[in-house]
Amino acid sequence: MTKLTVTFLGTSSAAPTRERGLPAIAVQREGEVVLLDCGEGAQRAFLAKRIGLNREMSVLVTHLHGDHVIGLLGLLQTMSMAQRTRALTIVGPSRLKEWIERTQALLQFGLSFRVEFLPARPGTVVRTRGFVVKAARAKHSVEAFAYMICEKPRPGVFFPDKAAALGVPEGELWSRLQRGRPVKVGERVVAPSDVMGPARRGRRVGYSGDTRPSASLARFFAGCDILIFDSTFKRGDREKALERKHSTCTEAAEVAKAASVHALALTHFSARYAGVASLVREARRVFPDTFAARDGMTVEVPQPDS
Amino acid sequence: MTKLTVTFLGTSSAAPTRERGLPAIAVQREGEVVLLDCGEGAQRAFLAKRIGLNREMSVLVTHLHGDHVIGLLGLLQTMSMAQRTRALTIVGPSRLKEWIERTQALLQFGLSFRVEFLPARPGTVVRTRGFVVKAARAKHSVEAFAYMICEKPRPGVFFPDKAAALGVPEGELWSRLQRGRPVKVGERVVAPSDVMGPARRGRRVGYSGDTRPSASLARFFAGCDILIFDSTFKRGDREKALERKHSTCTEAAEVAKAASVHALALTHFSARYAGVASLVREARRVFPDTFAARDGMTVEVPQPDS
Repeated sequence: MTKLTVTFLGTSSAAPTRERGLPAIAVQREGEVVLLDCGEGAQRAFLAKRIGLNREMSVLVTHLHGDHVIGLLGLLQTMSMAQRTRALTIVGPSRLKEWIERTQALLQFGLSFRVEFLPARPGTVVRTRGFVVKAARAKHSVEAFAYMICEKPRPGVFFPDKAAALGVPEGELWSRLQRGRPVKVGERVVAPSDVMGPARRGRRVGYSGDTRPSASLARFFAGCDILIFDSTFKRGDREKALERKHSTCTEAAEVAKAASVHALALTHFSARYAGVASLVREARRVFPDTFAARDGMTVEVPQPDS
Repeated sequence: MTKLTVTFLGTSSAAPTRERGLPAIAVQREGEVVLLDCGEGAQRAFLAKRIGLNREMSVLVTHLHGDHVIGLLGLLQTMSMAQRTRALTIVGPSRLKEWIERTQALLQFGLSFRVEFLPARPGTVVRTRGFVVKAARAKHSVEAFAYMICEKPRPGVFFPDKAAALGVPEGELWSRLQRGRPVKVGERVVAPSDVMGPARRGRRVGYSGDTRPSASLARFFAGCDILIFDSTFKRGDREKALERKHSTCTEAAEVAKAASVHALALTHFSARYAGVASLVREARRVFPDTFAARDGMTVEVPQPDS
């Protein structure tokens, strides 16, 4: 079974603390990385978690606030010094490209690899080897996007007994069926559905970025396996959440509940709180399958049916 | 005795390692901070070393390579979020101002305090409460400066016995003499030199930034108390040092020796070396009073006469 993991590289909000770095989250599957935001310090978190600098990678930027993007500059430079060769895809608000290119010109650094900038907009923003990534508008103080990283559907279970019973010899023809293509045995055509179970849906990781909660985000995140949601404030600090266009832990839980997700990860905690146990307690009153992200934590996204 | 300290916040070169962050060094005296370069991660090192965000502060930037300046963006933003009120002085190559202002515009962040940008150029670049800062040209692949942070001369030792013998009553008149001003006692004028030893020279911290060694830098750093010098490479990797316009540990030691400094701190180590003990050994063959900087290390700059 292919592992799909989420690693939290930075879990603070606007300012870092001694324990929490600025926002960055790595979703990994079969060597491929989807990086969600890239706050200052992300490249050192890559080192600590041994995420290679030449991996097949896409970066999804939610919005152009410094705490979510400044780490990109050092990451790009260090990738270049490490002689990265693979192209890097960056999805984000369109002025991100302008900022990176201006910075490159002023700080005089070239890159050893190609960067493909794709503008974020509602709908499918990029298809990678393992994922289809969708975006939706978030509600923040500047243009902002939420993302859903959808693992591509995986083929159904293959039944060797059925294939043998239909006279398909083991080897190349089995592989072809497993890849979803029909084969001919003598005069007879055997379809993949004759020897395989139904296709299994891919797993889905949702990420809100900085946002107020909304019914449209709950629809966007419907049924996802892990929802990572803005939880900057405690329930009692809702006024601050309203003013700064963030969410409270309780509001994150309400979105998770409305979206019927499988698990909720709280992150982007305000530096004002010494600990976050009370935020988790408050959220669990609304949505029990809640946990608090912490820097360096890796969670495996479970099978949809398990 | 006023303490003057040097705290190494980041001691790697172009790319960070698990143990070493990007270049940043804090010189501190009586609450005032002079920050030498500001690589990514400096703001978290401030937190770890409990350096306040509203301190009287000057930032001296040696050159506009990303590893020496990217940390400024997050530091400025976090200072603003902490409601910094004091003006901040930044000395560096003139395009630094352009880069910061462009970034502010694109990432939409204002500052709660005034920034005074001063262009780096050979000679005295800024006078602060406690220091006079001088700059000299360094030899790197882009315009680069070395800095000398000179503590202002301190008044000589005050002798209470002499003041009493001359009939100066303790209190306001003693303070005035200690501040270097003459006082009148009856018909007689008492000069500071009547009751105090000679003025003591201030302590000096030299910082090379990224550079090849040179005779002019050795003259610039003459007699400084601690010289912090580019030591990117081992002696055996001199070809790489030449090509990339850095110094080897041995070349750093040769500058320290020619400049008759009191102590040499090696820093800016290439990530290629797992440890730096051999760089210190090689440097000590030329200049014995050498040590290797490491992240989080604080050294006190000793009295010139001790």
